[in-house]
Amino acid sequence: MSTFVPGHQVPGFFMLTNNQVKFIRSLQLKKFRDIHHQFVAEGTKLVLDLLQEQHPVRAVYALQEWISEHPVNPGTELVEAAEKELQRITSLTTAPPVIAVFDISSVIPDPASAENELVLLLDDIRDPGNLGTIIRIADWFGIRQIVCSESTVDLYNPKVVQSTMGSIARVKVHYTDVCVYLEKLSKPVKVYGTTLDGENLYNLHLSASGIIVIGSESTGISGQVKKYLTKKLFIPSFGASNHAESLNASVATAVVCAEFRRQTMLQ
Amino acid sequence: MSTFVPGHQVPGFFMLTNNQVKFIRSLQLKKFRDIHHQFVAEGTKLVLDLLQEQHPVRAVYALQEWISEHPVNPGTELVEAAEKELQRITSLTTAPPVIAVFDISSVIPDPASAENELVLLLDDIRDPGNLGTIIRIADWFGIRQIVCSESTVDLYNPKVVQSTMGSIARVKVHYTDVCVYLEKLSKPVKVYGTTLDGENLYNLHLSASGIIVIGSESTGISGQVKKYLTKKLFIPSFGASNHAESLNASVATAVVCAEFRRQTMLQ
Repeated sequence: MSTFVPGHQVPGFFMLTNNQVKFIRSLQLKKFRDIHHQFVAEGTKLVLDLLQEQHPVRAVYALQEWISEHPVNPGTELVEAAEKELQRITSLTTAPPVIAVFDISSVIPDPASAENELVLLLDDIRDPGNLGTIIRIADWFGIRQIVCSESTVDLYNPKVVQSTMGSIARVKVHYTDVCVYLEKLSKPVKVYGTTLDGENLYNLHLSASGIIVIGSESTGISGQVKKYLTKKLFIPSFGASNHAESLNASVATAVVCAEFRRQTMLQ
Repeated sequence: MSTFVPGHQVPGFFMLTNNQVKFIRSLQLKKFRDIHHQFVAEGTKLVLDLLQEQHPVRAVYALQEWISEHPVNPGTELVEAAEKELQRITSLTTAPPVIAVFDISSVIPDPASAENELVLLLDDIRDPGNLGTIIRIADWFGIRQIVCSESTVDLYNPKVVQSTMGSIARVKVHYTDVCVYLEKLSKPVKVYGTTLDGENLYNLHLSASGIIVIGSESTGISGQVKKYLTKKLFIPSFGASNHAESLNASVATAVVCAEFRRQTMLQ
């Protein structure tokens, strides 16, 4: 895409043009991210993690001090910005010392990969914080691929990007028609999902590969996805009263992933 | 306290006075919650859970339809309110059909209880959503007591109350000087905490009673609390790159509590 306007740099005098400011701010909306195939990442850890993973970068806007402390690849478009300029383009309350624009890379998920590794499948996760936390959990537990239903919140929503704490750089997230994806899986691939009528997670032998389906915050796994489950799981509640009806979607993801990995560790 | 002004009810005509609206809204601030020892809960599930657990209630403000569908104890001060009145007192974007004011009950934590059951100790959790989620996790895993450092975010902060999804009604949360509390523990009580130099959680025998310390989101367990730990735990990261430096505080709580309960289940 050629819509990106590089920084106007006169030595010793730096200023983002109004068009640049407008463009970067527009990327807070999915509509413009879809048109330009670009997204914004803010803060030192997130930007450095993405750069380190060779994520294609359009431009890095940073305070002079940040630039002098953080050498980046010579080819990178690096624009020195004043604090008040960063304040104009940030999606956060307080601007961080660095904000960067990256390309959105679209990759088609390969159903064959679930034959050899664990893959998370998110069926309609709507909360940006939950998606960000789930990506962080996947990263921690060494899960490298997440397949999302098309109704799942957008990965490049600024709140999702920020709440991944850098894990967005290492975990591949795809959006697709999950039923088509599940249909294409080869027969022996196990499809796990947590449901209220599932079996106690801790009484089952869990495999080191396959799909773990995470349902939506409000309605769980949808009927159309449920029929692909080969094994239903339930996280036992130890509460005396059993009044706590559910765990948060990201918390449930963490408990399930931890148990898969604990069992793999023992194998 | 006698500061609460009951609803002015003329049959067929209901209106919250400006003083009532002002009072209920003031409870969004800790300063006024501390003065009046009252807090606000919003939404059907939360209000019903608190009423069911006999939490002392000052008044319930609800739409007429809600009142006709949800019988409450005869002694309860029940005020019919119009939607736009609820909109004036809600802390949420959209007013739920019911909003209630409850008493804050202060209980002193008993260090002896950790001899017989698991108790969570929160060392400076600052994010309201994290505290709410941790209370929900405790409820799920049958942990009935949480002891918080005085620097931990206030339990009755509207965001905490709402994010507990009703679990606030069942889990006792105390604020205290945690070092004084830990100092008073009897010798055999185990004090667990997650630290970066801890032992693999899954290689340890975990007890069915004791304290589990959860550190702050940014700095982990503080130096002054760390010296009371009798066993340091670490949630193993299965990530190939090990770039994900940490799990979210509430996610880590869930993984640790789940493993304590899994081991207890086997005993």
